[in-house]
Amino acid sequence: MKSIRSAFALLAIALAGLTTTQAQDPLPSWNDTAPKKAIIAFVERVTTKDSPDFVPPNERIATFDNDGTLWCEQPVYFQFLFALERVKALAPQHPEWKTKEPFASLLKGDVKGALAGGEKGLLEIVMATHTGMTTDEFHKIVTDWITTAKHPKSGRLLTEMVYQPMLELLAYLRANGFKTFIVSGGGIEFMRPWVEKVYGIPPEQVVGSSGKTKFEMVDGKPVLRKLPEINFVDDNVGKPVGINQHIGRRPIAAFGNSDGDLQMLQWTAAGSGPRFCLYVHHSDAEREFAYDRKSHIGRLDKGLDEAKAKSWTVVSMKDDWKTIFSPAK
Amino acid sequence: MKSIRSAFALLAIALAGLTTTQAQDPLPSWNDTAPKKAIIAFVERVTTKDSPDFVPPNERIATFDNDGTLWCEQPVYFQFLFALERVKALAPQHPEWKTKEPFASLLKGDVKGALAGGEKGLLEIVMATHTGMTTDEFHKIVTDWITTAKHPKSGRLLTEMVYQPMLELLAYLRANGFKTFIVSGGGIEFMRPWVEKVYGIPPEQVVGSSGKTKFEMVDGKPVLRKLPEINFVDDNVGKPVGINQHIGRRPIAAFGNSDGDLQMLQWTAAGSGPRFCLYVHHSDAEREFAYDRKSHIGRLDKGLDEAKAKSWTVVSMKDDWKTIFSPAK
Repeated sequence: MKSIRSAFALLAIALAGLTTTQAQDPLPSWNDTAPKKAIIAFVERVTTKDSPDFVPPNERIATFDNDGTLWCEQPVYFQFLFALERVKALAPQHPEWKTKEPFASLLKGDVKGALAGGEKGLLEIVMATHTGMTTDEFHKIVTDWITTAKHPKSGRLLTEMVYQPMLELLAYLRANGFKTFIVSGGGIEFMRPWVEKVYGIPPEQVVGSSGKTKFEMVDGKPVLRKLPEINFVDDNVGKPVGINQHIGRRPIAAFGNSDGDLQMLQWTAAGSGPRFCLYVHHSDAEREFAYDRKSHIGRLDKGLDEAKAKSWTVVSMKDDWKTIFSPAK
Repeated sequence: MKSIRSAFALLAIALAGLTTTQAQDPLPSWNDTAPKKAIIAFVERVTTKDSPDFVPPNERIATFDNDGTLWCEQPVYFQFLFALERVKALAPQHPEWKTKEPFASLLKGDVKGALAGGEKGLLEIVMATHTGMTTDEFHKIVTDWITTAKHPKSGRLLTEMVYQPMLELLAYLRANGFKTFIVSGGGIEFMRPWVEKVYGIPPEQVVGSSGKTKFEMVDGKPVLRKLPEINFVDDNVGKPVGINQHIGRRPIAAFGNSDGDLQMLQWTAAGSGPRFCLYVHHSDAEREFAYDRKSHIGRLDKGLDEAKAKSWTVVSMKDDWKTIFSPAK
């Protein structure tokens, strides 16, 4: 058996050599500009054995924001589209919504009016559409919705409004022993039903905002009931807190697109050893959307200044990406 | 290259055949009694391709309680030993503790007196010893302590007071594509510094009780400060909540030793498809400790009844385990 093992090992080495020689570009949708070069240089640096910057595989943690970093977030967060559709679907069971804000405005199609009351209105919409049911029921509602939900402008499935270059980046990092996590301000239970299929990221590697749940016995069967009470907001200063809570070790690479990701990038950068921080800058009005310092959604202002000051990598979607969205399936 | 690939594949198959034929017992510290047979039967059932009970690797989630399931919890929870030593170490900075309970009693060596006030006293001890510092500082305090901390009765390192049969079980499950998680009532930040080395479980696969943390900038460097405020209690009904929050999918196998694990086992059992629930029963007064229905620590009463009613696997440490503790290193 020992000789077979040796032959096996030799063949594996030979094959690995062939594979490397014939390797295709791992990031074909990226132009050969600075960001792509910086990513590859970083990955080679931390994966080269006997290098002083070598990082063992179990410490290769990479965290990704979702909205605006992995998929589109314009003209509104997609989770808000979900909430709107749920309000319509639930309206027959809530006749009182006809005269009760923010629902009355929403049902008339007046989103602006519904949100005029500020955060309170938004919170009421979230609670009415995301709580009361069990976690299993909510999982099914999201799964059913995401299967057909389309983007209001492009008409494409929302799950196709994901950035092809970022899908390649996720795969490239994983092929190099990284564990990829989502760390998003979006709802953790809103993302988990579909991110494994779309990004290859399993539910246990998703960190997000959440409501409280309660263990209950219903007809002798245990369920978790979603309560109308906020558990955790995974945004801004919440992102390092969420990372510490869920992952328990500091990422060596972090990817975001807004000021809401700044503390995650700061937290990542502050670790010892090689670190990589990247901002996606929405600079392509033609192929996607162009927005930064003054946007209500995905504002990138302080983050852009800090990225420049700290020499973090900034991706211009217009200049650095050959393709924006993944091809239709 | 294609022919090399084929040769490679053939060799791999041949090697796999050899390995299976010559396979060693994966659970050598288990007697050949019912629990061992049930474990192996379950693993074979869910890993056999083309079987109706096949479970894809990404859904092979197994959760383990820690205290009393993976390591010893007698005569007191080991985290309490940590807290006691911290009180002693911090006492010079707290002259007021000389007259303030529960610290005054503790410092005199009167643990019973210190805890006479019930949960309030215990909570004060935890807050005084587990909060105020940054997460990095706490990580170092725990790491330093666990390196030398010894068991009050056996005199062995606490990290050697782990159950050898359970270490084998963890490795066996992982070798069969399972992802193993700890789901413990113990502190998540108390466990993470050492569980990877001791159990092979990485920090991101640890669920536990936690306090709140706060993102702060100290001299331009971000830190997470541990606040004297409870975030989550991962025990009893909290275990399914913690599993849902951290893992986001239901385990197919769960392992515990007390009534505090009952809801985790119920939650696991209630999923569709093949499920495996196991209780470790502390029945060996000679080699470990014997306790169950009336113990203050690790009480197993309702759980024992439910295990019998539901035909879950119950391990008698006395009868089913050849060895209890891992050999000295």
